Amino acid sequence: MIEPEEVARAYERIHPWLAHTPLLRSSRLEGWLGGHTLIFKAENMQRIGAFKARGALNTLLKRKEEGALPESVVAFSLGNHSMGVAWACHTLGIPCTIFLQSGASPLKKQGTESYGAEVVMTASREEAADRVKEKQAEGYYFIHPYDHDDIIAGQGTAALEAFKDGVQPDAIFTPIGGGGLAGGSWLTTQLVSPQTEVFGVEPVLANDAARSVQAGEIVGYDTPPPTIADGVRTLSLTERTFEYIRQLAGLYEVEERDIIYWTQWLTHLLKTTVEPSGALPMAAAAQWLSAQTTPKTVLMVLSGGNVDAITHRQIWAEDRLTKRPAL
Amino acid sequence: MIEPEEVARAYERIHPWLAHTPLLRSSRLEGWLGGHTLIFKAENMQRIGAFKARGALNTLLKRKEEGALPESVVAFSLGNHSMGVAWACHTLGIPCTIFLQSGASPLKKQGTESYGAEVVMTASREEAADRVKEKQAEGYYFIHPYDHDDIIAGQGTAALEAFKDGVQPDAIFTPIGGGGLAGGSWLTTQLVSPQTEVFGVEPVLANDAARSVQAGEIVGYDTPPPTIADGVRTLSLTERTFEYIRQLAGLYEVEERDIIYWTQWLTHLLKTTVEPSGALPMAAAAQWLSAQTTPKTVLMVLSGGNVDAITHRQIWAEDRLTKRPAL
Repeated sequence: MIEPEEVARAYERIHPWLAHTPLLRSSRLEGWLGGHTLIFKAENMQRIGAFKARGALNTLLKRKEEGALPESVVAFSLGNHSMGVAWACHTLGIPCTIFLQSGASPLKKQGTESYGAEVVMTASREEAADRVKEKQAEGYYFIHPYDHDDIIAGQGTAALEAFKDGVQPDAIFTPIGGGGLAGGSWLTTQLVSPQTEVFGVEPVLANDAARSVQAGEIVGYDTPPPTIADGVRTLSLTERTFEYIRQLAGLYEVEERDIIYWTQWLTHLLKTTVEPSGALPMAAAAQWLSAQTTPKTVLMVLSGGNVDAITHRQIWAEDRLTKRPAL
Repeated sequence: MIEPEEVARAYERIHPWLAHTPLLRSSRLEGWLGGHTLIFKAENMQRIGAFKARGALNTLLKRKEEGALPESVVAFSLGNHSMGVAWACHTLGIPCTIFLQSGASPLKKQGTESYGAEVVMTASREEAADRVKEKQAEGYYFIHPYDHDDIIAGQGTAALEAFKDGVQPDAIFTPIGGGGLAGGSWLTTQLVSPQTEVFGVEPVLANDAARSVQAGEIVGYDTPPPTIADGVRTLSLTERTFEYIRQLAGLYEVEERDIIYWTQWLTHLLKTTVEPSGALPMAAAAQWLSAQTTPKTVLMVLSGGNVDAITHRQIWAEDRLTKRPAL
């Protein structure tokens, strides 16, 4: 595990290039919850529409500081990471090749290409891994979606920015895919607020982190789990991210219907475009808050807002706005 | 017509109670358009999720200044105006009754009730008008959705706030329903920037304003026109708003498919929840900008963000994000 100070260094490195994303609140939601303060860090309004711009740029700028800026970059991803890498490379003038697994959102493919990346579709995760190795052999620098210290430190800057803006949360909730965002957020608390609890949230259909913690070893999937939350369809943690996930105050697992429920309600209450993954923190926070006996301040990382038409139709297939959220 | 200074007075009166809504931009959209500056005044993030909070509150606060704050209020509406009135009455502690026509969005009914208003559904516009008259006879103060000087001045404060934030637009685009927002925006330009052109935008399916200007007299509908843009399903202008609409630099008419197209794209590019009515200005601005030979700054009033599940499904029934906007 890296030093918490790495998050502060990452922030200094990357923030001039990034959006300072707003903190969103809903008086109606807080009224329903009665006395708690709910703050959403709107990383859906970050460059590329997701927090992934942070880790990718941090990785490249750190190489640059070390005098080793790559001449070419390769990555694989199911979505937002590919856009983060493509954008960071575009920003620094580096060519990059992205292997996108079939099943990736067409919108994320289009977004990746819009930053000038070469996008190659692959039939499977294995094929993507093989193709990445070929590129590495040719001298391309590989940026893993989460199994990388600079990615973890970079993703942690979203929470750090909220602290810099004056938020003093009792608890932070983040989605867990590969563990980079949750791990980086935990590092941030170690730096600036060790008493703040950090919770990771995943779909029941993609609960490998919870099962891994329970088993004491990493368990995962052979193929991407079929949750609507496409941002967290990762196969498994890695040894690196597992170390962070074990430090968290707890993990929550959310049913698909509750992911959809909160995606609808946050879209309506916050007037912002929410990926299903971005609604995971609220679903868990609602559970956590219902067990609290004193007023709490909660920070939730609204991780992304890249939603394609098919996913919009899945989200809105049934009307969940007709009744007020069950809290 | 009222004095332009009325908009400035309205702003001073109401702004402490309202959200100072953000100005949104998309570098990707501006890149596509090539050299123009496109600014969206995010009134979807206003109290109640629409600009209608402005006019309703201005009307009541002006009565209060005159020492004649109503003891009870009545209104009718298809949607956002009902929430604006309910919220303003709630804010000032005044009971109100809202007649909502059948066909009103369930979300807007729910929102109106959430501010403590009594909501009564009526089968027709005629019935609503009759019931309003009964209430007026009982002493209720009636707030018309647009045929009211204080409503027009209040709606104009959205554009004024953008000028106060430093925007110097060559042109302003607003949707036209009953004409209050367009009229108030034009008044604002007379106050602070007479050289700024103001354009009104309506669906082809609800083009009564354009037809009225062409005919030189008010023409309208017997029943609400079936456009997806539920915020502008008004039957007609009134003599009062017609006077303002005749002053505009021009009117644009937008096909349903283009309304849907821009609703999808603005949801994606701005990461904000856009009512179909709120996408009308962009559809027209794209046309206007395509004919400009020098770089222009355009201000568009993103009028609201209250979208129910049925409308979300209609918006996303076909994927329009697969190809970049035709500009």
